[in-house]
Amino acid sequence: MDALEQEILEMGKRARKAALTLANLTTAQKNAILESMADALITAEASILEANAKDLAAAEANGLSSAMTDRLLLDSARVAAMADGVRQVAALPDPVGEVLAEWDRPKGIHITKKRVPIGTIGIIYESRPNVTSDAAVLCFKSGNATILRGGKEAIYSNGAIADALAFGGREAGMPEGAIQLIRTPDRATVQYLAQMDQYLDLIIPRGGKGLIETVVSLARMPVIKHYDGICHLYVDKDADLEMAKALVVNSKTQKPSVCNALETLLVHRDVAPAFYADGGQALLDAGVALRGEADLQAAHPGKVEQVTDDDWTTEYLELILAVKTVDSLEDAVDHINEYGSRHSDGIVTKDAQRAERFMNMVDSAAVFWNTSTRFSDGEEFGFGAEIGISTDKLHARGPMALPELTSYKYLITSDGVVK
Amino acid sequence: MDALEQEILEMGKRARKAALTLANLTTAQKNAILESMADALITAEASILEANAKDLAAAEANGLSSAMTDRLLLDSARVAAMADGVRQVAALPDPVGEVLAEWDRPKGIHITKKRVPIGTIGIIYESRPNVTSDAAVLCFKSGNATILRGGKEAIYSNGAIADALAFGGREAGMPEGAIQLIRTPDRATVQYLAQMDQYLDLIIPRGGKGLIETVVSLARMPVIKHYDGICHLYVDKDADLEMAKALVVNSKTQKPSVCNALETLLVHRDVAPAFYADGGQALLDAGVALRGEADLQAAHPGKVEQVTDDDWTTEYLELILAVKTVDSLEDAVDHINEYGSRHSDGIVTKDAQRAERFMNMVDSAAVFWNTSTRFSDGEEFGFGAEIGISTDKLHARGPMALPELTSYKYLITSDGVVK
Repeated sequence: MDALEQEILEMGKRARKAALTLANLTTAQKNAILESMADALITAEASILEANAKDLAAAEANGLSSAMTDRLLLDSARVAAMADGVRQVAALPDPVGEVLAEWDRPKGIHITKKRVPIGTIGIIYESRPNVTSDAAVLCFKSGNATILRGGKEAIYSNGAIADALAFGGREAGMPEGAIQLIRTPDRATVQYLAQMDQYLDLIIPRGGKGLIETVVSLARMPVIKHYDGICHLYVDKDADLEMAKALVVNSKTQKPSVCNALETLLVHRDVAPAFYADGGQALLDAGVALRGEADLQAAHPGKVEQVTDDDWTTEYLELILAVKTVDSLEDAVDHINEYGSRHSDGIVTKDAQRAERFMNMVDSAAVFWNTSTRFSDGEEFGFGAEIGISTDKLHARGPMALPELTSYKYLITSDGVVK
Repeated sequence: MDALEQEILEMGKRARKAALTLANLTTAQKNAILESMADALITAEASILEANAKDLAAAEANGLSSAMTDRLLLDSARVAAMADGVRQVAALPDPVGEVLAEWDRPKGIHITKKRVPIGTIGIIYESRPNVTSDAAVLCFKSGNATILRGGKEAIYSNGAIADALAFGGREAGMPEGAIQLIRTPDRATVQYLAQMDQYLDLIIPRGGKGLIETVVSLARMPVIKHYDGICHLYVDKDADLEMAKALVVNSKTQKPSVCNALETLLVHRDVAPAFYADGGQALLDAGVALRGEADLQAAHPGKVEQVTDDDWTTEYLELILAVKTVDSLEDAVDHINEYGSRHSDGIVTKDAQRAERFMNMVDSAAVFWNTSTRFSDGEEFGFGAEIGISTDKLHARGPMALPELTSYKYLITSDGVVK
């Protein structure tokens, strides 16, 4: 075993130990620690920005794209936003300790099912340094110890943020090892983390498909994945076409770079001519590049690229929309279940029964009726903060907030009952 | 890709397709199919026993142990019990469709969180042929499609049981591909299943540590593990020693071969002399071989083997008990969290506060106060039937019944609300 692997194992051991203490902190203790972390972030602003300047200089030297550089960039406002985020998490209700169910059994035993933290969580993420703080405090509030492994392009920024959190946390009595950052930018650390199932209960990779793939193939513990959002809207034959136009334009253009933005539009053949004329024009006016079949091309000559099979599985994250005419609601459902990413998909229709059928048959985390897909979001759901949107079906599906970062245990009591 | 891998992929495709239909069967439809399967098992008794005779002959030829052979053996009563099991599952409440939560949001959207099946589940198991039926019908009732991969020593029995289930199911309208059995006894099938995450949402290995280890290292999808039960009872300084004696003897001897049987006893130093004299004698009288330290050995000269570190991590599954004297409740908790398997662990004490502290600090699926560990069981919890006892903390922990075989989805409706 090399020194780096040994170091990661030691971090795992410390995290496991911290988790046992964390599980039994009171809400007041955790909130005091979080407030102290928020204060520490503000106090450490100068050193965080100094560290960030080093990352930015390296980014420039390495010729990073301007989009990547913008993700890296911290300024006074972004540090303040991070600190605000910590305080918002402090203000959220504590899920730990909630009694989920309680019942008696005929033989005289009493059973309580109680919410407890998961234990130890590894977060593997890419460029954005604010994830260091955002993810760590969500895990902390839900009573979990975290090991963070950020991207090497943000290594100085992540270190400075983690130092501030550790300093603030310690001041208020945070157990040692509750939040740890891997500071060696070696790729092998991902592998060591992913195989350390004796110390790590869960891994959450936050980043591109490549990163998630790597973690999935290496991990021995559960992984909660946040894959692509290939989101669909289906405009039914019974749709209100004005409403459909507004929903399609909103879902596609309100913020195209996020996972709940629309990527594929399906239109029932009966309403396709009318919708392509008016709704299609609205999309073009909004700057959306359309990719469609002959009928859509005929509606807007010279303005619609030919759609190909690859488009059905592409998450554009920009102002491009793939469009397909379908013969029936069932065809729409089949297309979504075949090519979608089980994220967020909706129907526009006036017919409640058809809406219900669609929502039951589409196998996605969030299904929408006459509503913009952009509402697939922890904030919009009222969860306060989210660690991501799970495209998995086990443990957590859709927006993942504090309760999704917990497990449960059974407490069984009696006055000496034997079997 | 070889022909076998291709075959497994085809099964996966069929399972995925079946799952989409299964998710929308009514409870009445599913129950009718289950009743028809139970009938078919009874009707097929002769062919099931004939197939079983082939497996038994092979077992004898291969020199299988009598314990293994007993696990394999089917007779009229066992086939009837299997059919009864199917009817019991039919009688259980259907978890699918349950509304878990429902709320409105200020912008005018309404959110419903609804329980849905997981989708497709792979079950990999060893000798007992009844698992073919037990596991398949639990998955079916909760709306999931299954691919079963049994041990090669039960291959004929499993085939005959699966044939009966398929025949009975088809008669009552079960979708094709809802329950499939891998009939090729090739080890590679485990690998092909474990890597087919495009078609399989979950794998549940049921069997020994070796099997689980193999699946964990290969699987790309979530695995719910049912590892060892290294269960502990801790006799506190404030214990009622008569109660402690009864609980320890019951937890150890009532059925030593199961995962919720006691394997390690921890005794507070203050009460150790008294408890070792009387409780120790009761254990010896019950035929339990004790492994302990000097104090226990002194209490029963010549009758107690020296305990070693290996004992703390051994699941005996027979009448052997490891015993340790501890200095405090905290020492007991540390021992359990260090050496236990997070399964089922209890305290015997008259002091409610100490009991609460123990139950909060022990990181196990089920924690007991003044109660036999043998109650860690789906039946005893009132769950009706269980597919196993999860030692994982993600998705399902402890006894896993029908609700634990489901996921959920969010349904979001409005009258055209955009963001």
